[in-house]
Amino acid sequence: MEKKRVAILGSSGMIGQRFAHMLHMHPYFEVTAYCASDRSEGKTLANLWKLFDIDMDEDLGKSKIQTTDPKALAKEGVEIVFSGLPSEVAGPLEDACADEGMAVFSNASSHRMDIDTPILVPEINPDHLASIEAQRLRRKKGGYIVTNANCSVTGLALGLKPIVDAFRFTEVYVTTYQALSGAGYPGVPSIDILSNVLPYIKNEEEKMSSEGKKVLGGFSNGRFGDSPISIEASCARVGTRDGHLEAVFIKDRSMPTAEKIAKAFSSFRGRPQELELPSAPIQPIIVREEPDRPQPILDCDAGMPERAKGMAISIGRIRVNNDRLRFLLLVHNTVRGGAGGSVLNAELAFREGLI
Amino acid sequence: MEKKRVAILGSSGMIGQRFAHMLHMHPYFEVTAYCASDRSEGKTLANLWKLFDIDMDEDLGKSKIQTTDPKALAKEGVEIVFSGLPSEVAGPLEDACADEGMAVFSNASSHRMDIDTPILVPEINPDHLASIEAQRLRRKKGGYIVTNANCSVTGLALGLKPIVDAFRFTEVYVTTYQALSGAGYPGVPSIDILSNVLPYIKNEEEKMSSEGKKVLGGFSNGRFGDSPISIEASCARVGTRDGHLEAVFIKDRSMPTAEKIAKAFSSFRGRPQELELPSAPIQPIIVREEPDRPQPILDCDAGMPERAKGMAISIGRIRVNNDRLRFLLLVHNTVRGGAGGSVLNAELAFREGLI
Amino acid sequence: MEKKRVAILGSSGMIGQRFAHMLHMHPYFEVTAYCASDRSEGKTLANLWKLFDIDMDEDLGKSKIQTTDPKALAKEGVEIVFSGLPSEVAGPLEDACADEGMAVFSNASSHRMDIDTPILVPEINPDHLASIEAQRLRRKKGGYIVTNANCSVTGLALGLKPIVDAFRFTEVYVTTYQALSGAGYPGVPSIDILSNVLPYIKNEEEKMSSEGKKVLGGFSNGRFGDSPISIEASCARVGTRDGHLEAVFIKDRSMPTAEKIAKAFSSFRGRPQELELPSAPIQPIIVREEPDRPQPILDCDAGMPERAKGMAISIGRIRVNNDRLRFLLLVHNTVRGGAGGSVLNAELAFREGLI
Amino acid sequence: MEKKRVAILGSSGMIGQRFAHMLHMHPYFEVTAYCASDRSEGKTLANLWKLFDIDMDEDLGKSKIQTTDPKALAKEGVEIVFSGLPSEVAGPLEDACADEGMAVFSNASSHRMDIDTPILVPEINPDHLASIEAQRLRRKKGGYIVTNANCSVTGLALGLKPIVDAFRFTEVYVTTYQALSGAGYPGVPSIDILSNVLPYIKNEEEKMSSEGKKVLGGFSNGRFGDSPISIEASCARVGTRDGHLEAVFIKDRSMPTAEKIAKAFSSFRGRPQELELPSAPIQPIIVREEPDRPQPILDCDAGMPERAKGMAISIGRIRVNNDRLRFLLLVHNTVRGGAGGSVLNAELAFREGLI
Repeated sequence: MEKKRVAILGSSGMIGQRFAHMLHMHPYFEVTAYCASDRSEGKTLANLWKLFDIDMDEDLGKSKIQTTDPKALAKEGVEIVFSGLPSEVAGPLEDACADEGMAVFSNASSHRMDIDTPILVPEINPDHLASIEAQRLRRKKGGYIVTNANCSVTGLALGLKPIVDAFRFTEVYVTTYQALSGAGYPGVPSIDILSNVLPYIKNEEEKMSSEGKKVLGGFSNGRFGDSPISIEASCARVGTRDGHLEAVFIKDRSMPTAEKIAKAFSSFRGRPQELELPSAPIQPIIVREEPDRPQPILDCDAGMPERAKGMAISIGRIRVNNDRLRFLLLVHNTVRGGAGGSVLNAELAFREGLI
Repeated sequence: MEKKRVAILGSSGMIGQRFAHMLHMHPYFEVTAYCASDRSEGKTLANLWKLFDIDMDEDLGKSKIQTTDPKALAKEGVEIVFSGLPSEVAGPLEDACADEGMAVFSNASSHRMDIDTPILVPEINPDHLASIEAQRLRRKKGGYIVTNANCSVTGLALGLKPIVDAFRFTEVYVTTYQALSGAGYPGVPSIDILSNVLPYIKNEEEKMSSEGKKVLGGFSNGRFGDSPISIEASCARVGTRDGHLEAVFIKDRSMPTAEKIAKAFSSFRGRPQELELPSAPIQPIIVREEPDRPQPILDCDAGMPERAKGMAISIGRIRVNNDRLRFLLLVHNTVRGGAGGSVLNAELAFREGLI
Repeated sequence: MEKKRVAILGSSGMIGQRFAHMLHMHPYFEVTAYCASDRSEGKTLANLWKLFDIDMDEDLGKSKIQTTDPKALAKEGVEIVFSGLPSEVAGPLEDACADEGMAVFSNASSHRMDIDTPILVPEINPDHLASIEAQRLRRKKGGYIVTNANCSVTGLALGLKPIVDAFRFTEVYVTTYQALSGAGYPGVPSIDILSNVLPYIKNEEEKMSSEGKKVLGGFSNGRFGDSPISIEASCARVGTRDGHLEAVFIKDRSMPTAEKIAKAFSSFRGRPQELELPSAPIQPIIVREEPDRPQPILDCDAGMPERAKGMAISIGRIRVNNDRLRFLLLVHNTVRGGAGGSVLNAELAFREGLI
Repeated sequence: MEKKRVAILGSSGMIGQRFAHMLHMHPYFEVTAYCASDRSEGKTLANLWKLFDIDMDEDLGKSKIQTTDPKALAKEGVEIVFSGLPSEVAGPLEDACADEGMAVFSNASSHRMDIDTPILVPEINPDHLASIEAQRLRRKKGGYIVTNANCSVTGLALGLKPIVDAFRFTEVYVTTYQALSGAGYPGVPSIDILSNVLPYIKNEEEKMSSEGKKVLGGFSNGRFGDSPISIEASCARVGTRDGHLEAVFIKDRSMPTAEKIAKAFSSFRGRPQELELPSAPIQPIIVREEPDRPQPILDCDAGMPERAKGMAISIGRIRVNNDRLRFLLLVHNTVRGGAGGSVLNAELAFREGLI
């Protein structure tokens, strides 16, 4: 099988480099263009590497950065674009790529709430892919944009999916302990976070509610319909490198036992597991039995096989108290909640014949 | 006025040293005995000082540590005992002191849930002091024990008091970001918390519920009655030195505006303010208008005048969304939520003629 | 006595704010203008406050920021300017102020190596003040610039002065553990320093050598003469908020005992102590006997009286091994090694009749 | 080839677990006994796992801990013992194992300075292995002890070896930035190191001098002879997880160019490279050209192939200034400077026919 030609936008940033790392030696895709702004042109990935926890592959490091030119990419035969662009600039550039006929898989928030663009989390809403039909019609050359959800939303929605389906919960309260890598680079000044918590992340709480309702909602008759779930979030940044931890409360008239809930989590499987997508974790939700897990440094990279490291979420401390449920959830914010989300989206689209 | 003679138990620990610092040059009290275990006997406070944010007074530093001998303390004319003992050893030692006729103000959890012992937060439940009558009867010499609430509970209860009274809320969800000093010394190993969050603090969530219900409840006919409030907590340790941050959610059938709630907080005053107790903050709840406050390093020491630094709590990000209320609350865990709580309790007892 | 009218340049930054804090209620000086770039005009100091360890005075916080206009300052009767400007912009603005007749006390490096500008550390080289005569001549209106040394140099030079004088050492090796506040704001990205050391600070090692030689050198016949001392430095940034720690090695043919060296440190006094300048620490070098001191969080604020907190350096672990001497030295980088250095310089100049 | 049967002492600690990880699937050795104190008996490695940066192999995690019984180990056919014991208990237990005829490879300091026990760093002093002959004679059954050097010494000695040989340097000054993992578990309390540096590590500076002189010295006529090198060290703990950074100064009458020194480093090879030992890094010293390297989080795991990760040291910022040389050196303190050192020692002994 010939691999699909792929470009990465935003290759100088942390998400772009996660894409580069995850797509290196990928069975379906081959990166033929590492794009970034003019400022980085001609530099190598090694020059700009920011992923401290990853041993950069030496060959990968030699890859040269080029400027971002959608028309040129299309001409070079690029069919797929992964966008790790900051949201301030992502909107028009991603549109330009889609208008040139390419399939764009984006981590940026710019297009997430568009009426014909899915926020895809393949275990949750693979049927939302159907929404791109409308996009392909309005864009002349068959291209489209698929987004992944915000990092915190991805973790929460994965954790809610099995139990919302099984037990019809609607009332959710969630508090986050978000990692520094979520703010990109340079991100948070060290002097602001040393021995501190920053209890505000712009727009994050709103996204958790609106994106959560879209991701967990339906798509029928060409329209997205919000989930009836209500998500009330309180978000804060703490001094961790990777891994968003979320404390979740759920209230309902009655509540199943903690054992039943744990079972719903650990037995959960979705379309990516069915298709055995390369980046799909065999078990998307790992349930921890220890009293003090999950922890960012211990559980951030959960997921098997090797290619799916960081693609599983971890859930622990499942406690039921009368009509209330509490648990803690951990998601790798730049893998499952970032670049990895879009890689899995592209793998699904590819296998569903949409590329 | 002659000052009352005072002893501090647990002087080698962080809470004991907070007591020493807060009682230094106190207008009502004079510390005449710094007690600790035999291991520390003969050392000076300076030898054992652990409060890195405080310039230890030089004279105070020269104070010698003596062993803990309740009978000897009573003989030396000590009338008041402040206990910063770890809960494992506090119970019997505090009983012994009370049985010798001394008034014991304790930060330990050992006696908090006793049926004739108050968990006193003077702005909230000054009437609970009446419960010591039963204690004085059963103890032969008129002594008694008064406890302060757990650090996280103190902050939460203070934040709930004005709005629970005004709006009759009953359903509370709270998530904590707790500081390292809350674990005492040596406390949390550095290697466990570096770039990490520890999502478990033994018994803390249970205390938030049970102590919260007692503190906010009533005392009549010689019995404590639980508040109808339900508190569902999720507690975690983060890498901050001082200051517990708490994210609070409240749900009710209807919800007043954020402005009304802010006003209820900032206009709140209690018995300590009425009596102008030395360690009482003029304004017990400071409302922050900035989008990103309160923060541990910025707001931990809130409270005026000088003697009341760390005795006010800070509340910010008050958000109302239909029938739900969210806000963030910060309490200095070893001052208002620790030693300072008991100092204020003793000041109240003294002014109410109970010493 | 009427206080001298004073302006602060760079009031939006950390050093500017240290100036504001240290000059508040100063016995000689009164700040009448808080200047910064146009971007901050009209904001208050409270809006921009970045000194987390300092309770900002409420009145001070209300001070309005104005733009930086040397001519206007001179017209308003400002006689003294404190410059906390970044070195990229300090040079010409400071010159403009001096040319308008004002005495400029600068923390910036721009003019430090000028041939008629002193790097003044009043305990070390008060005679270097004579160098401003040449400046006053070339500038038309009698103004001049006096600089303080780089933060690391200030600490090192103070630590070397008594023993270089007493024992004629010339060979020095020094390694630094420098605090985050030394990089200004936003400074070091949190993701770069979390669980890390950054072993490079641009130009810092060169400054330690060149500024050190000038500070410890002489001034005679209108010329600066370098000290024969050689300083070989290795500088790194670590994850501390305030306080540069320096490990010093000295080699010589023979070496006095550790006791003699400790005595030279602790008995050291200079011109500021003689004149009892307001910001002068009674004892400029505190010798610590404990095996594990000085430490940044414990010793950073050394210095008495209150106004001199952070103005003394601390030295500990003095070890002599044959012909080699080792010790550790701690200096508060933004107080003694920053704004406080220039405040002391201005106090000296004022008392020497140069303002 | 049948693998040699191996036991690990101290399996509940961080060094013991590094041994377990590095010996898993080892081509020469097979761990048949994981020993620890009675307190841990019956637990699994997974229960006690403390190496946060390592994905524990699932099968390995199931290994059961047994008590430490030298006679029983010998009976079970164990020929090699790796000791990760704390130095307080290592001495007699290691002796007992050697006396039972086993070859003991120890990370503890207890026997390092013994007159017939080598401190082996295979790239530096493979000839020191000859010293075990005397041990085998005095112990009845042919067993012996070989130690690895202290973590900081290992890095320094590797960095000195090529240039001391080439240029006959003798005068060395070194300052360390040591990681938290070097203190074991629980190690340093978080409250002591948060935003701080601890400028004292018990006995560390003395070890750097005495062990360094032994490691770099000779062995002839059955006796160790100290190297003429003098090492003056200043050691401190900083808030990093892994990787000791060392700032090195060298003084000599004349000094080669930085290029020549860099070349001496990068071309250095030793006996392990010659024998292609499994844990030997192809290149033991990696020279970094960037101005700000090595850094603990980026360079700690240097070394190829996979099995040698963390076994190479990194050197950067090589600066020559007249007769003085400065550079920075990074060593993984628990791999090359700990368990990995002893694994390499055992591989060498095995290949030299001593097991």
